[in-house]
Amino acid sequence: MLIYSVKETIERENLIKHGDKILVALSGGPDSICLLDILVKLREEYSLTIYAAHLNHRIRGIDAQKDALYCSEVCEKDGVIFFLKSEDVPALAKEKGASIEDMARQVRYTMLFDIKQKLGIDKIAVAHNLDDQAETVLMKLLRGSGLQGLRGMDYVRDDGIIRPLLDIYKYDILQYCEENYLNPRIDKTNFEDEYTRNKIRLNLIPYLEKNYSSNIKQILSRTANIIREDYNFIENVAKENYELIKSYQDDNETVLDIELLKNIDKSIKRRVIRIAIISILKDLDNIETVHINDIIELMDKDNGKMINLPRGLKVYVNYGKLIFTLKEKVIEEKKYSYKINLNGYTRVDELNLTVISNIISKQECLRYPTTKYAKAFDYSKIQGDLVIRNRENGDKINAIGLKGKKKIKDILIDKKIPVEERYMYPIFSDDNGILWLFGYRIAEDYKIDENTDKVVRIQLKYDVNRRDIIEKFI
Amino acid sequence: MLIYSVKETIERENLIKHGDKILVALSGGPDSICLLDILVKLREEYSLTIYAAHLNHRIRGIDAQKDALYCSEVCEKDGVIFFLKSEDVPALAKEKGASIEDMARQVRYTMLFDIKQKLGIDKIAVAHNLDDQAETVLMKLLRGSGLQGLRGMDYVRDDGIIRPLLDIYKYDILQYCEENYLNPRIDKTNFEDEYTRNKIRLNLIPYLEKNYSSNIKQILSRTANIIREDYNFIENVAKENYELIKSYQDDNETVLDIELLKNIDKSIKRRVIRIAIISILKDLDNIETVHINDIIELMDKDNGKMINLPRGLKVYVNYGKLIFTLKEKVIEEKKYSYKINLNGYTRVDELNLTVISNIISKQECLRYPTTKYAKAFDYSKIQGDLVIRNRENGDKINAIGLKGKKKIKDILIDKKIPVEERYMYPIFSDDNGILWLFGYRIAEDYKIDENTDKVVRIQLKYDVNRRDIIEKFI
Repeated sequence: MLIYSVKETIERENLIKHGDKILVALSGGPDSICLLDILVKLREEYSLTIYAAHLNHRIRGIDAQKDALYCSEVCEKDGVIFFLKSEDVPALAKEKGASIEDMARQVRYTMLFDIKQKLGIDKIAVAHNLDDQAETVLMKLLRGSGLQGLRGMDYVRDDGIIRPLLDIYKYDILQYCEENYLNPRIDKTNFEDEYTRNKIRLNLIPYLEKNYSSNIKQILSRTANIIREDYNFIENVAKENYELIKSYQDDNETVLDIELLKNIDKSIKRRVIRIAIISILKDLDNIETVHINDIIELMDKDNGKMINLPRGLKVYVNYGKLIFTLKEKVIEEKKYSYKINLNGYTRVDELNLTVISNIISKQECLRYPTTKYAKAFDYSKIQGDLVIRNRENGDKINAIGLKGKKKIKDILIDKKIPVEERYMYPIFSDDNGILWLFGYRIAEDYKIDENTDKVVRIQLKYDVNRRDIIEKFI
Repeated sequence: MLIYSVKETIERENLIKHGDKILVALSGGPDSICLLDILVKLREEYSLTIYAAHLNHRIRGIDAQKDALYCSEVCEKDGVIFFLKSEDVPALAKEKGASIEDMARQVRYTMLFDIKQKLGIDKIAVAHNLDDQAETVLMKLLRGSGLQGLRGMDYVRDDGIIRPLLDIYKYDILQYCEENYLNPRIDKTNFEDEYTRNKIRLNLIPYLEKNYSSNIKQILSRTANIIREDYNFIENVAKENYELIKSYQDDNETVLDIELLKNIDKSIKRRVIRIAIISILKDLDNIETVHINDIIELMDKDNGKMINLPRGLKVYVNYGKLIFTLKEKVIEEKKYSYKINLNGYTRVDELNLTVISNIISKQECLRYPTTKYAKAFDYSKIQGDLVIRNRENGDKINAIGLKGKKKIKDILIDKKIPVEERYMYPIFSDDNGILWLFGYRIAEDYKIDENTDKVVRIQLKYDVNRRDIIEKFI
């Protein structure tokens, strides 16, 4: 008995609670008429209040009016409160430049959710069946989809939509309508994704039934159910991770922590990024896998880097954070560069430190050993001004012991300095090149040798409260 | 250039490490010949040592010999160490009662892993291509499969199998063979799942390409890749959960904790149960969704309950644990039943408590109020022996205030007593029925009324160290 199968679905998936107010989306076709009939039969058992709503979309002229009349008669007979909305969908579609199919769906769902809100409806029951589900799974597969699509339609959605007939074959619905003399209207306008879906229904599924599995529809529906469980699990994990990784969110921007984001599983990482995108764009339209990949690659890029994504979305790297926003953003770079007083003090506010420099003799130099904070250079080898500054793109150092020059950036990466700190590390350079990367060796070209006469000794004296940051690097 | 695509796959999926010893499964057909040729070209760059192994399965008589000869010639030309095994697969299949296809695959893989072990080979390279992958995904879908199957074939497996051609179209492989004058043998025996796979290759995929998506193969391959990420994530979570939930494991049995298992997500729960099954049966052959569902239902059953699954697997409920085993197991039920000395002490070792009973007058009774540990009954209403015992199936009590009898089991469930403790809770009964469920009300039929003369007063005195368990219930 069909009603028991539906009840099994209702109980298993928790579709209905005792005392629920349920609104049935009633087209007058076999599916929705069968659904209404069954809910009416279950009305007493679950203490339901049942409503039905029909949209006269005026697409099929006199036929559409007959549909509406038929629906109102069925509801009257069953004691169901009936809502009818009439809208010139073809005209509206033309006006808005949308397809008739999209327009009809939009008007219909707006109507349903309006009624839901006004009457405090608990659930909106729609009449998708097992055949629809199998078609959906195939359609999503053929278009290329992950779990999101292959899970098919949900039995129950957060917005209150329920699908009690999702385990029922179309064939059994037609049978039920016949046995119960329901005389549904033949719905000639099956909008949703009409062309592909109809092809799948009329050609592909019969072809698969004949050549591969006679129960292919059930197999696909079961596949959707298994995948939905996995999908829900992963989505929940991703949502929890998103909350942990999100360091800021307002109407304009969502900020994720790069280090945390890097440390999670690939499958979750992609989802967290998608949630961040949705927080700005509201949905994922036009966002493709390649864009998610671009964002993942962006995490390894320098501070201030940005990528443009569809629909005006911008993602910036900003001191260890990813910023998702629609607005132009200037990433403050805290650029600094100071000419060093070779016999005296040079203050670097950005780093909260002072450079102490002295020009001394080679002999004198021996009394002051070099440390991680103090280095000595051949004075005669320095060309032009000696400068302390932050890293610029392409900076290289020919450090003692290296064969050839090495990129400063690579050295910092090798030393596992987080991206947001890399940019700030002090570099000492003259007009020709780099003398010293703080925390690393000095350059071959400036070292003291047998010909050295005068020596420049440079020492960093940092403010106490910066010790933690500086020491991390040494 | 095909070689760059293969390199991209190798790098992205980490298929090969510098210095690897690689064994190529060489049939002599276009796929494996192309694979060998490319690995030979990459040999220097990755410092590889390349081996190849061919099985002469003697299925195609003289043709099979020519295949073997061709393979040995290619390897000689390329400086690749060549292994040849000859086995009368049709005879062997007959002897073992297996299909020729299964037998050939089995012999081939045994050969490959034998060589791998003997020579300390790092990777076994097999030549599955993108077309094979697309066919696999469809085949799994048509048979009904979750992520496990829809993820398709892995690029790299834990056992060392790698698939460097998995992103390459068959068409491009044939092209490559032609352009490089490789003259591969035409492999007429494509064993694996021959019938369905060939139908999918020759009919379904061309049909889908023509009517739905000309790039359906790529779509399916990409789908497999997306699903594989999710699959790997969920499997890892499940493995971690399994280790937490497993309370014991040896060669004969695997024991899971029911309370922990109940508290995890449905999607993970099923996987943990599957891992437990694999720990006993080594694989999931013949285990279907319905069996997993049976095990999930078993968790709510009484102590000692058991279900038989395929291949001799048994799952028992044993004091809050699920035991997976192939052996018969007697679940020790700790059955107890003691006749109560109505004027004296009765010891219940199983519960570490003593029952103190007195026959007193109704007047005397007033001086001793009833408590949760002490109740009073009309002596004249007790028929036959008064017994303290554990619950039996079907036990019901007509407790004061209840309309009619209620199952003891349901009362314990309502009180959220864990299944492993339910069975032990003491019940007091005579020849006619149940007087008292400890921790609950006494029965209507035994209560003191206006006609009562003598009273039996029963008191429980438990050993101190059991207080925790008893009190949990009260």
